[in-house]
Amino acid sequence: MGRGRLSAATSIVGIGQTEFSKAAGRSETQLASEAIVAALADAGLTIADVDGLVSFTIDPVEETELTRSVGFQDLAWSSRVPYGGGGSQGVVLHAAAAVASGVADVVVCFRAIKARSGVRRFGSADVVNRPTSSHSGTTAAQWCSPFGVITPASWFSLNSARYMHEFGVTSEDFGRAVVQLRAYAATNPNAYFYGRPITLEDHQASRWIAEPAIRLFDCCQETDGAVALVITSAARAAHTPAPVGIAAASGAAIFEEEVGSNHYRPDATLLDSSVALGRRLFDGAGINRSEVDVALIYDAFTPILFMQLESLGFCGRGEAKDFIADGNLGPHGRLPCNTNGGLIGEGYIHGLNLTLEAVRQLRGSAVNQIDAVRTALVSASRTGVVLRA
Amino acid sequence: MGRGRLSAATSIVGIGQTEFSKAAGRSETQLASEAIVAALADAGLTIADVDGLVSFTIDPVEETELTRSVGFQDLAWSSRVPYGGGGSQGVVLHAAAAVASGVADVVVCFRAIKARSGVRRFGSADVVNRPTSSHSGTTAAQWCSPFGVITPASWFSLNSARYMHEFGVTSEDFGRAVVQLRAYAATNPNAYFYGRPITLEDHQASRWIAEPAIRLFDCCQETDGAVALVITSAARAAHTPAPVGIAAASGAAIFEEEVGSNHYRPDATLLDSSVALGRRLFDGAGINRSEVDVALIYDAFTPILFMQLESLGFCGRGEAKDFIADGNLGPHGRLPCNTNGGLIGEGYIHGLNLTLEAVRQLRGSAVNQIDAVRTALVSASRTGVVLRA
Repeated sequence: MGRGRLSAATSIVGIGQTEFSKAAGRSETQLASEAIVAALADAGLTIADVDGLVSFTIDPVEETELTRSVGFQDLAWSSRVPYGGGGSQGVVLHAAAAVASGVADVVVCFRAIKARSGVRRFGSADVVNRPTSSHSGTTAAQWCSPFGVITPASWFSLNSARYMHEFGVTSEDFGRAVVQLRAYAATNPNAYFYGRPITLEDHQASRWIAEPAIRLFDCCQETDGAVALVITSAARAAHTPAPVGIAAASGAAIFEEEVGSNHYRPDATLLDSSVALGRRLFDGAGINRSEVDVALIYDAFTPILFMQLESLGFCGRGEAKDFIADGNLGPHGRLPCNTNGGLIGEGYIHGLNLTLEAVRQLRGSAVNQIDAVRTALVSASRTGVVLRA
Repeated sequence: MGRGRLSAATSIVGIGQTEFSKAAGRSETQLASEAIVAALADAGLTIADVDGLVSFTIDPVEETELTRSVGFQDLAWSSRVPYGGGGSQGVVLHAAAAVASGVADVVVCFRAIKARSGVRRFGSADVVNRPTSSHSGTTAAQWCSPFGVITPASWFSLNSARYMHEFGVTSEDFGRAVVQLRAYAATNPNAYFYGRPITLEDHQASRWIAEPAIRLFDCCQETDGAVALVITSAARAAHTPAPVGIAAASGAAIFEEEVGSNHYRPDATLLDSSVALGRRLFDGAGINRSEVDVALIYDAFTPILFMQLESLGFCGRGEAKDFIADGNLGPHGRLPCNTNGGLIGEGYIHGLNLTLEAVRQLRGSAVNQIDAVRTALVSASRTGVVLRA
């Protein structure tokens, strides 16, 4: 079985983004182009240097249109990663593999989304009823939607309710994590919830989306915007202003584990793909979990953050609530987490904005900078990377 | 710029397929599953060995459904290649890169299509009017469809007409190539046109699809079916029954070259992506074009075969017609080509069935076996591979 360690050293050398908003007022192709141009400028590279491109299968921006818009001259590699946000770190994996295998030299990863002014992904059943591709990971929805499980929040709520029951987790436990995420977001000018921290009482007062697991404030902030990253070899990265190494990268897709649910696995409270992912990223690549200084963990909904902490091996089963109550996700905790505010606080660029925050933390340029960050994890539950300063 | 040579040796170790027909009578997921199971059996590997999966962005089979159907246990790599049939060899490229980079050990490539009983790709405007994804490479069609260029045959016909004008190429010249392809198909039991060779007169009597370039018999045979390949490291391949090496693999997507057309490039008769592809596959990987014993060249329409021969560097500009008239695509020619009958004669599994034929030729097991095949090229115009016995 493939390990998480790549056969050659690769680096993230540039990051770029648009503003995050409720209504971008321009096309996804335009948003992607802006983020890519910004990322290349950040890397000190030009458009003509790019020979690889990676995005999500469900990203609406088409290769040929983007090539004409941005001005790519000759792409030797072009790929798309399935599984929606769960596949978000797969774009980094694909780019790194393209470079490590010698197929491409400079690969751009991007995600452009109008999740607020366009097709909502969580606030409605749009994502199910109008899939943007045939393989967005939502085919399985046909089996549960007749029973009322029609939105991502309701898919996730089934596992989450079981998880709460199994380990005595309450909505207040989830709330404590959200208060921390919103505190990070409150000091992040990029964040949708900049300047708007909440209390635990605010969280408990927010309306139910899928009782008893998910309140409004447990949901990520659906957002318009785009982000981009530039990846190249470590050798070439040495000539760029602020490279960050890719120490490990992998995907993990387990038999009968669906996207956005886990209804068929023996234990609904365990994310088996995250277990396999953690094994590859850490054990396979020879990295100790204790080395992780900052974690960016896909938080489409608060319970997913809890379950990933446990499935990835940062907490024992059922221990996430106490780990979080002890303040360990905060700036002085054992595992500062989602320091940009996460998808719940900064905005939902489908998980790829978490990778940009990991890069900023490793560069020492984050708004909520953690001290002495050497190693950062980005987990999207079924895809992930470990980055190194 | 990335070269075509991969950083580690990889091999195709298994091939599998369903029957090719006008009406498969079962789902694409079923077809894909059958082809994959056959390919793994051919490789002497099990489903549990697989940890990577690649297909086309526009393939309708979804990862999670396929995983549940086939029984994959844990996929570390999952990717999709854009550009439709032009990207068909990109699936081999992605699989090889996943293996070469250390991310996966055993990768399955597949394409399942119901191009006859489902959405027609060439015989109608379905492919434009009902895209199966937002990035199927047909966005550009919006710019030409208002002017009547509404099917792939009509897109290609514009370049083709210019090519005919520029170099004095006639429909009879195209016909001579088709007669050879149908001769190969006539002796291939897998081929849709098994037992049905044609004469040049038959070709000339077939009706116009897009005058003056494309007659009915110049069009590939839209088909239902699925094919699959299994790719692993050369080290592991040494323990399988009939491995074939991947000597070079690359993509090439040039600025302002659209999928299925070339209307914006300075010279409409040159496939610039094929020029770049040939440069990587041969010059970049240190392989001489004269080493190619068998060529499998994407023949959605006959003129594309002519233009690729020239753009890849097997003929000078305008020389394909004489090269073909001299019998060079035949079994005793200088470049035996599409020995399965091609997409025109065997059937249209979107280009990936050409790769299976290359493997059979290198194994010495093709029905129209060419003598002493050591090196085979598969070109899909903007993606390609060179395979070695």
